[in-house]
Amino acid sequence: MQEWYKNYVNQIEAYLGGFFQAKVAWAPLYEAMRYSLLSGGKRIRPVLALEFCRVVGGAPDQALPFAAAVEMIHTYSLIHDDLPAMDDDDLRRGRPTCHIQYGEGLAILAGDALQSAAFRAALAADLPEDIRCRAGLILARAAGEDGMVAGQVLDLEGETRPLSEAELSQVHLHKTAALIQAACTMGVVAGGGSEAQYSAAIRFARALGTAFQIRDDILDAVGDEATLGKPIGSDAASGKTTFVTLYGIERAEAMLTEQTEAAKTALSGAFTDTERLLWLADWLLGREY
Amino acid sequence: MQEWYKNYVNQIEAYLGGFFQAKVAWAPLYEAMRYSLLSGGKRIRPVLALEFCRVVGGAPDQALPFAAAVEMIHTYSLIHDDLPAMDDDDLRRGRPTCHIQYGEGLAILAGDALQSAAFRAALAADLPEDIRCRAGLILARAAGEDGMVAGQVLDLEGETRPLSEAELSQVHLHKTAALIQAACTMGVVAGGGSEAQYSAAIRFARALGTAFQIRDDILDAVGDEATLGKPIGSDAASGKTTFVTLYGIERAEAMLTEQTEAAKTALSGAFTDTERLLWLADWLLGREY
Repeated sequence: MQEWYKNYVNQIEAYLGGFFQAKVAWAPLYEAMRYSLLSGGKRIRPVLALEFCRVVGGAPDQALPFAAAVEMIHTYSLIHDDLPAMDDDDLRRGRPTCHIQYGEGLAILAGDALQSAAFRAALAADLPEDIRCRAGLILARAAGEDGMVAGQVLDLEGETRPLSEAELSQVHLHKTAALIQAACTMGVVAGGGSEAQYSAAIRFARALGTAFQIRDDILDAVGDEATLGKPIGSDAASGKTTFVTLYGIERAEAMLTEQTEAAKTALSGAFTDTERLLWLADWLLGREY
Repeated sequence: MQEWYKNYVNQIEAYLGGFFQAKVAWAPLYEAMRYSLLSGGKRIRPVLALEFCRVVGGAPDQALPFAAAVEMIHTYSLIHDDLPAMDDDDLRRGRPTCHIQYGEGLAILAGDALQSAAFRAALAADLPEDIRCRAGLILARAAGEDGMVAGQVLDLEGETRPLSEAELSQVHLHKTAALIQAACTMGVVAGGGSEAQYSAAIRFARALGTAFQIRDDILDAVGDEATLGKPIGSDAASGKTTFVTLYGIERAEAMLTEQTEAAKTALSGAFTDTERLLWLADWLLGREY
């Protein structure tokens, strides 16, 4: 991991860690929210928000509230995704999932409150109101019924019947790429980027998001259980359609390379200082399973 | 019900009914969202938003997106509240609850998407960006971990142990009054009201919200099952602390009167044309159980 990435992560952790001041009366709610929000991870989405703010000429920390907002949406979706009525997962990053730790009721509410908190963070940012409003709207669209949640609905269906190639692509564009796209474009908006930069950020995010999901599917099939923090082969065992079950490992690997290259190509022309983003794509999508 | 109220409700229903354009791929999600959002009810919160916009000098329909946003938050909270891990209710307004109709997974996601949609509605309103941003922030604070969700956490605790008077009051201020307050103040913001009007709207909303919850507790104890659309006496049977279990019916009735009067008093001085709001308080909180 490069130094700048570590610095970004430290800034993000500090912001997230200070966002909730616990009230005695409902301390368990705060605890459940912080348990999931501060459980580590690569912080890819918020790092992308900070870096896209920088490459369009802003100071990275201008985008911190937007970065945190995206991470809160991501975290709430993981909490709800792990529930018994959804993926029914007991472990995430090697720790008990939120509902295992705090019970289902509190886990549902912690997720709900994290979604509200995301909009509070974005809309209370120390930036002009038109920028805050635009960023909040990007986030609402990315998170909602035509964005991330649509992807989860299709994903849920994919656990009960095989999905077509077109459907699988829709799952990933919505479930994963939508929020990555929000992170990148909110960074562009925070830094005052141009419309051309905004469009390039969308192309980058969609390719990166798809690549990321392909890699996730490959990891589930051939990854290392200790590194992954969850059981291997669970997708195939549950009959779920993934890039690997649909195309096989070799074709999935080739698609991962294609999408990684597409993400990197999207950057050229629109931004001058793309070194970090190019490294980021290679690092995130690298072949170390 | 007065004519102006019916007109407001018609505007609100039309707005809500047209907000989601169903995509084929995830039609079940839209169906679950619309099932709960368009299931009738008095539409108290959105009506308050429109009327507060009017009494500060705005056109009521300026506040329609804000009104709809509050109703979407309210609806999502009902969907999640009815889940087996929360109140475990099978019926709402005489119809199967969302998870009974569509399954738990889809009900959780429909609630999640309604919350995102609420922010989308508020932030995409046809109003200046500073007003949209301010309204969105009011909504985020009211809905989140120091607002409505905090109330639900305390409410959940109240199902496992008796609550103190102070705690019960906190439940209601957060669970019910927070969102009513958001509705009233977002109306004031949409109509360009003064800070004094904003403060008066807060006082009105807190008293009305508390009164509303007291009435709800009385209804649960002595109401008519057919009118209510759910079983009578369920609070007492489950050992839940309510205004009625804590104070008895007579004292609860007296508190309801006090809070109703407090709500009406809050209006005087700040607004000139309060006739509709005075009627509304009496009508909502009337003694027809």
